[in-house]
Amino acid sequence: MAAVAAATRWRLLLVLSAAGLRVTGAPQPPNILLLLMDDMGWGDLGVYGEPSRETPNLDRMAVEGMLFPNFYTANPLCSPSYTPQEIVGGIPDSELLLPELLKEAGYTSKIVGKWHLGHRPQFHPLKHGFDEWFGSPNCHFGPYDNKARPNIPVYRDREMVGRFYEEFPINLKTGEANLTQIYLQEALDFIKRQQAAHRPFFLYWAIDATHAPVYASRPFLGTSQRGRYGDAVREIDDSVGRILHLLRDLSIAENTFVFFTSDNGAALISAPRQGGSNGPFLCGKQTTFEGGMREPAIAWWPGHIPAGQVSHQLGNIMDLFTTSLSLAGLAPPRDRAIDGLDLLPTVLQGRLTDRPIFYYRGNTLMAVTLGQYKAHLWTWTNSWEEFRQGVDFCPGQNVSGVTTHSQEERTKLPLVFHLGRDPGERYPLSIASTEYLDALRWITPVVRQHQEALVPGQPQLNVCNRAVMNWAPPGCEKLGKCLTPPESVPEKCSWPH
Amino acid sequence: MAAVAAATRWRLLLVLSAAGLRVTGAPQPPNILLLLMDDMGWGDLGVYGEPSRETPNLDRMAVEGMLFPNFYTANPLCSPSYTPQEIVGGIPDSELLLPELLKEAGYTSKIVGKWHLGHRPQFHPLKHGFDEWFGSPNCHFGPYDNKARPNIPVYRDREMVGRFYEEFPINLKTGEANLTQIYLQEALDFIKRQQAAHRPFFLYWAIDATHAPVYASRPFLGTSQRGRYGDAVREIDDSVGRILHLLRDLSIAENTFVFFTSDNGAALISAPRQGGSNGPFLCGKQTTFEGGMREPAIAWWPGHIPAGQVSHQLGNIMDLFTTSLSLAGLAPPRDRAIDGLDLLPTVLQGRLTDRPIFYYRGNTLMAVTLGQYKAHLWTWTNSWEEFRQGVDFCPGQNVSGVTTHSQEERTKLPLVFHLGRDPGERYPLSIASTEYLDALRWITPVVRQHQEALVPGQPQLNVCNRAVMNWAPPGCEKLGKCLTPPESVPEKCSWPH
Repeated sequence: MAAVAAATRWRLLLVLSAAGLRVTGAPQPPNILLLLMDDMGWGDLGVYGEPSRETPNLDRMAVEGMLFPNFYTANPLCSPSYTPQEIVGGIPDSELLLPELLKEAGYTSKIVGKWHLGHRPQFHPLKHGFDEWFGSPNCHFGPYDNKARPNIPVYRDREMVGRFYEEFPINLKTGEANLTQIYLQEALDFIKRQQAAHRPFFLYWAIDATHAPVYASRPFLGTSQRGRYGDAVREIDDSVGRILHLLRDLSIAENTFVFFTSDNGAALISAPRQGGSNGPFLCGKQTTFEGGMREPAIAWWPGHIPAGQVSHQLGNIMDLFTTSLSLAGLAPPRDRAIDGLDLLPTVLQGRLTDRPIFYYRGNTLMAVTLGQYKAHLWTWTNSWEEFRQGVDFCPGQNVSGVTTHSQEERTKLPLVFHLGRDPGERYPLSIASTEYLDALRWITPVVRQHQEALVPGQPQLNVCNRAVMNWAPPGCEKLGKCLTPPESVPEKCSWPH
Repeated sequence: MAAVAAATRWRLLLVLSAAGLRVTGAPQPPNILLLLMDDMGWGDLGVYGEPSRETPNLDRMAVEGMLFPNFYTANPLCSPSYTPQEIVGGIPDSELLLPELLKEAGYTSKIVGKWHLGHRPQFHPLKHGFDEWFGSPNCHFGPYDNKARPNIPVYRDREMVGRFYEEFPINLKTGEANLTQIYLQEALDFIKRQQAAHRPFFLYWAIDATHAPVYASRPFLGTSQRGRYGDAVREIDDSVGRILHLLRDLSIAENTFVFFTSDNGAALISAPRQGGSNGPFLCGKQTTFEGGMREPAIAWWPGHIPAGQVSHQLGNIMDLFTTSLSLAGLAPPRDRAIDGLDLLPTVLQGRLTDRPIFYYRGNTLMAVTLGQYKAHLWTWTNSWEEFRQGVDFCPGQNVSGVTTHSQEERTKLPLVFHLGRDPGERYPLSIASTEYLDALRWITPVVRQHQEALVPGQPQLNVCNRAVMNWAPPGCEKLGKCLTPPESVPEKCSWPH
């Protein structure tokens, strides 16, 4: 893949070289706050039709800002390759991330929550432009025995301050964990400090309460009509409300661009107790149907984004890179193509730009949307073998010839859906229809152009070694929590999609 | 069935005897405006998550009033029995309808749109309490040849003023018809006249543009992202906006209670071009899954209903009868049980009342919801025979053991769903769980009580005769449009559900 398409391989990612930057005149550019949810689905917010309507703060955020019903992630998984602890690789130094670029405009940057771009020291966020970190390098799976596998560490900046299920407990039985409250406090403290210092900030708030095992703190447990998953959503909704409230209290709301979205569709394999809702869309996480990649998305910037807007711009999470640079008065580097669109003309003036959305699974371009038409070049949910063992990415849904259990190539005769009439991808257009032919005539050259421009990227996650797991993260000695790694045995590994 | 349950057998229905009425003191009771859609689904409104978000007026109505995410119809069909022209029967005189009762409080009543409670003269709305009628006695199916079968007449009050596909054209090819505009004008004129006369009014606006064959007038054709069905929805949304605007213009908004809902779920057999969306819910029209019976519902009464409310009250369309009487200061009759709840405490003070929702198909009690739990006593979509011929009430959806194609009795061991965690009815509770047992312990006595209180009603629609079709409706002679009926041959007929 090309460096640009490789960007689809990283989490939130914003990965670029420093060439060609330019600082424009604005004396104090706006703060940037990206709220990235984990496995939250399009249908999980009241404003997107969740019947229990338990997200009053996010719904209000939408009413005060701009709602995107057609916003997509770049990959239907948390991390485009699932990255367990034994993976040796991570984000290469040759990639330049958004916080690195934003430094040129004077920003201080913090990540709160899950990093997931490599857990070994050279990959840590503070080596890649962030000034502060509170959170974890991997998912909050566990508990582990600290023998075959260590528990995931939690970092403050360069050093670990404890581990999940130890200093940072998660009660799998009751679902109780205080983590969202801790992440909230980290966000509020950071915002207050930057405001006091009159420094523009970039805060990447990548919390994971809605990723199985889902959790909530005690005041929220049992409060949702939707069970434990809903408790987690309610706590997040409350937290977002508190963050926006603080921005108003500090009188910096009009100087802070806030964007809320999620990393992929709801994990229906964990539903209903540990997974969310993709509303009317087909399937969920891990698939390239709409349920896997269409995301909740809200832009909020009082005084700049007119209230109560809905934009049908086809948006992509990669746009947040370009848009953030634009907010900071920086131009994107010119030495490579950039997939991300600058959404400022969309959010400020309501401009609509024709652009394709590409749906990847691993290196395979599975589908493309242009305008209202989505063409599937491949269909696949998961293997018959997995499916027969009860792994179902599309529970209760079965569209003949669409939700296939073998990888069906359709590049010669794509399956085409009209997403306006048929957002649930249930009625493929007849291949004999004029509409089908017109849609393909429009989409085919766009696919060809994309594929011709593409240069394969370097896989970073295909060497594993149990010796590199989180045995002895920096700072472990202060806590007396260093574990002894096993013998180093590098081996090839693969993470099929 | 008991007389009360028989109410579930009529369209909008409001069917009662006059005993025990009481007029309370209010000098001018509020106007009552019921907007009843035809085959519109829960998921068709932006405020319920329709991704194209093309209903700004209805969404605003919700923001200014109270939204019900848990509101149900009494039957998953337009008319609990489909009533083609050869049906001899209709609404009996022994039933007393809402407009008859409202007369006691000085209301003038009009029906605009589809009646569907019998097309022979003795059943007409003006024989049952309405003062005015503009609309049709049957669905706008056609065109017919006026030989084997006459086209459906359109009435103004007691006389027909033309027929569909003749004086009231519907272009099946383009989808163009001016009917919604005519129905809108009828509503606006009626409201203006009543306001000028200082008379309280009851307007029942039962339009049918979203029932296949769907239609819209020229300015709306091709304007929706959702195709022709969406065009119809947009025209309806615009019309509702105009009606509410007129109420404000005339300064009677604060004295007019408006309720918007639909008669059953979206007709997925007609989707996607001629049918709507049931959002995240299972199946559609004709079934007793949530997609068949959960409806969009908005209450609006500026100055009385606080703005921006969402109520999780389990509501039923039969409540509109009781609530309307309450608004008029009338008490429901005491000589029979009344299923409908007075929703005024809900809309005015936010009160929540525990009550069951019963899901019927024909005479069969298929399912019951109480609180968050829904118990299916029977499951059935349609017969294997129909299904194999391509008739599918649950396209793209298939929940094993739930969307069955034979009538599966579950009364001994009901299938139970938690609708909060699982609004899509995909994950039946384990019958070994405590939760299942607790839910059944709660629901079982409610079902028993309901069934014990039930006295079967008299079927009204099981005699057919082609001689009674709309050959020569009153007024046909003025138009020179009287057709000669065939020989009278009464025969038994049945309308399986």
